[in-house]
Amino acid sequence: MAAPSKALIRDLRRVVGEAHVLHRPEELMAYEYDAAVERALPEVVVLPASTEEAARVVAVAQEYDLPVVPRGAGTGLSGGAIPTHGGLLLPLTRMRRIHEIDPQGQTVLVDAGVVNLDVSKAAAAHGLRFAPDPSSQKACTIGGNVAENAGGPHCLAYGVTTNHVVGLEGVLSDGTVVWLGGPAREYPGYDLRGVVVGSEGTLVVVTRAQLRLMPVPERTHTLLAPFHSVDEAGAAVSRIIAAGIVPAALEVMDQMALQAVEEALQAGYPQDAGAVLLVEVEGLAEAVEEEAEEVEALCRACGATEVWSADDAAERDRLWAGRKAALGALGRLAPSYYLLDGVVPRSRIREALQGVRRISEEYGLPIANVLHAGDGNLHPCILFDERSQGELQSAMKAGGDILRLCVDLGGALSGEHGVGIEKSAYMPLLFGPADLEAMARLRPAFQSERFNPGKVFPNGASCFEVSQGSAIARAGLEAFI
Amino acid sequence: MAAPSKALIRDLRRVVGEAHVLHRPEELMAYEYDAAVERALPEVVVLPASTEEAARVVAVAQEYDLPVVPRGAGTGLSGGAIPTHGGLLLPLTRMRRIHEIDPQGQTVLVDAGVVNLDVSKAAAAHGLRFAPDPSSQKACTIGGNVAENAGGPHCLAYGVTTNHVVGLEGVLSDGTVVWLGGPAREYPGYDLRGVVVGSEGTLVVVTRAQLRLMPVPERTHTLLAPFHSVDEAGAAVSRIIAAGIVPAALEVMDQMALQAVEEALQAGYPQDAGAVLLVEVEGLAEAVEEEAEEVEALCRACGATEVWSADDAAERDRLWAGRKAALGALGRLAPSYYLLDGVVPRSRIREALQGVRRISEEYGLPIANVLHAGDGNLHPCILFDERSQGELQSAMKAGGDILRLCVDLGGALSGEHGVGIEKSAYMPLLFGPADLEAMARLRPAFQSERFNPGKVFPNGASCFEVSQGSAIARAGLEAFI
Repeated sequence: MAAPSKALIRDLRRVVGEAHVLHRPEELMAYEYDAAVERALPEVVVLPASTEEAARVVAVAQEYDLPVVPRGAGTGLSGGAIPTHGGLLLPLTRMRRIHEIDPQGQTVLVDAGVVNLDVSKAAAAHGLRFAPDPSSQKACTIGGNVAENAGGPHCLAYGVTTNHVVGLEGVLSDGTVVWLGGPAREYPGYDLRGVVVGSEGTLVVVTRAQLRLMPVPERTHTLLAPFHSVDEAGAAVSRIIAAGIVPAALEVMDQMALQAVEEALQAGYPQDAGAVLLVEVEGLAEAVEEEAEEVEALCRACGATEVWSADDAAERDRLWAGRKAALGALGRLAPSYYLLDGVVPRSRIREALQGVRRISEEYGLPIANVLHAGDGNLHPCILFDERSQGELQSAMKAGGDILRLCVDLGGALSGEHGVGIEKSAYMPLLFGPADLEAMARLRPAFQSERFNPGKVFPNGASCFEVSQGSAIARAGLEAFI
Repeated sequence: MAAPSKALIRDLRRVVGEAHVLHRPEELMAYEYDAAVERALPEVVVLPASTEEAARVVAVAQEYDLPVVPRGAGTGLSGGAIPTHGGLLLPLTRMRRIHEIDPQGQTVLVDAGVVNLDVSKAAAAHGLRFAPDPSSQKACTIGGNVAENAGGPHCLAYGVTTNHVVGLEGVLSDGTVVWLGGPAREYPGYDLRGVVVGSEGTLVVVTRAQLRLMPVPERTHTLLAPFHSVDEAGAAVSRIIAAGIVPAALEVMDQMALQAVEEALQAGYPQDAGAVLLVEVEGLAEAVEEEAEEVEALCRACGATEVWSADDAAERDRLWAGRKAALGALGRLAPSYYLLDGVVPRSRIREALQGVRRISEEYGLPIANVLHAGDGNLHPCILFDERSQGELQSAMKAGGDILRLCVDLGGALSGEHGVGIEKSAYMPLLFGPADLEAMARLRPAFQSERFNPGKVFPNGASCFEVSQGSAIARAGLEAFI
């Protein structure tokens, strides 16, 4: 990667000050990766403190014809924040102001660098919260959530990020600041807000977001049921949904995930189960108790050997502990893993898991499964050792087969982690040439070809250059999904 | 308007058959208007029976360089289906097949011409329903709902159309068929589905939609409370929302609307009230009863003189009857009316209604108010007599003042009726030049300049050529909002 010119550094320093322009190799290394497998160095890292500074930085990048890669906390799992084409990396982490909360309108305006969980903490004083809860929520930023249209266990009932973002402020590639959408029930004109959510930093640099807040439920009840098999747990999921219950979360872990969790933290999860189902119901106290009873009965009818049930916070945290630590625990079973993110129709979960088992056997690689089962969102986790000859390549091929399987079953490539560089090569599995071309036409419309180049679309680079450790080890976070 | 050439008629007949190409003046007249005030004649009307036929018709239009205006049932209130630039009008009303319902995945694939209410009727066998419920739901089509991102009283709890459309099939301007989005929890790539919903037929011709279905609630409870004033009713709305209750509907009618309803159908609504509030809560039986009690107590605390309450279907229908017939009833008070659709933050409803009263006095025109109060969505209805010199112009000016008022209060131009030709001139009130330009760039990206020209954007024609009757009288429907 070419070293940035003195003129560029000078111009950038004029905008954000000397301390916030990083260009020495040792400074750049910290920004080489996110939580995906790939890595690449930027030429320069610039940390703006405000929308105005961000806009001026983008204008400087245009002047020097540099790629611009926006970045949040770097917890993304599909490589969205990796500057594969070099250029200017633009972390928005200094912009972390939570502006006024409107308790009546139930919205809040926040900077892109605000941490997900901090929104709910600030809103708690008004009995409100921000619903999307990716497992990295203690670290990940709203800007990153918007870029990847992030999900989380509780998105089953409430929808993913796009359902909770009412308006966006962003910078176009020429430095113009625009406002997309707004706090009203519906906004006239084209929903550019919606197209920017999930666009992975390729259309505009999002600088602020107006978020929808929801009332904190009066009561929350968590149930954990062990089953003899994943199929039984899947049947319980179907019965719960068919009964008209919309739980806040509906999570499944298979035997391998369970054992890893037990070894790692003795969460007290049943040792001999083939799978566990974790169900959370929320709402008015009486409705929640009624639903919890119904869920328990349905679990037993589907073969649950017992049902653990909790409605106080400490006890609920204990039931969640194993689930939340699952990925960290899996990281102990093998030196590396490749965490996938595929979706299938709810009715095809069973076939999908059978297919994953077949692929596991074919490649001789263990695959553990954690699922947002209510949404048909699979997270197969392929365990491998990259020091073993060819295992990384096998893991990548197995991952490709799993994504293909999901699409063949009527599903999609990504439930919540985005496409990034990880899955751009697989987009043609899901979209025909006309569909992809319709999408690609947006890029010139925004004149944003310099924003996060090489992401999302299949002509983007998809090189895997792993050199050390696993994604989880590098990022040092407990859980990502 | 030029008569269509024989060659064009011949080419179109080859696609859809002779019976489905209309070009004689007496045939075209039926397609001159929708439910807005404006009107304009197309050159030719073509009714395709399938996606394939629609695609071929669009390709013929491209060959002859004709504007293409898609149309559903013509119940739209902003003139979206009026062929202001002539050309080819493309009603999709022959495409009304409801394809397979997936009860497990809770989705259904439907043709664009399927009537809104028919979706819920078909889904009822599985205990499911389609949530968006514009008051024209017995007539309006899914294609029109998608084009206008339609709302309805029950969108308070469940969101407008875009929240219930998971995928779209559509025809691009060159006749290519694309599929946007899909049934998964989230779809990778740009959310073109989202940008097409609400684009008012200007980007693609939507031919089919995959819709999200929701469980029919176990219990529904409706309450109707008369108040001394609209302010009191508004205070009750605030208290209900602040209590963390999310009713399925939260509707307010002011005194003028009430009186019109009473005169028209003796609905039994209280005669001396300054306003009534209609609240509907839905869900599990016990939660609903608890919420209904809380709503009743809050209404009384805010000054409700009594509270009528019903949880059986017949009784609930009776409470809704007046609300559903409100617009039809208002049509009896004056020869014409102009129904507006503005949004303000919930906390500014009171100021908005005071402003509407001021505008009413200033122009000397009575204005009745019906509100989706939970969403801050106002529907002021300006009563006038277009036969009186200058009254139409006054009504239009008063309408502009009301829209300006909504924007000044931090709201928006449109809550659910779209921009169309009615409000395109007012878009600059809400959006800056850079915001509008960012939107306008999408049009060339889709190469869709021939699709529904003159709509949404402020450079579109906005001529009002009213010649007879009111919108309501012409369309012959009981209720539109």
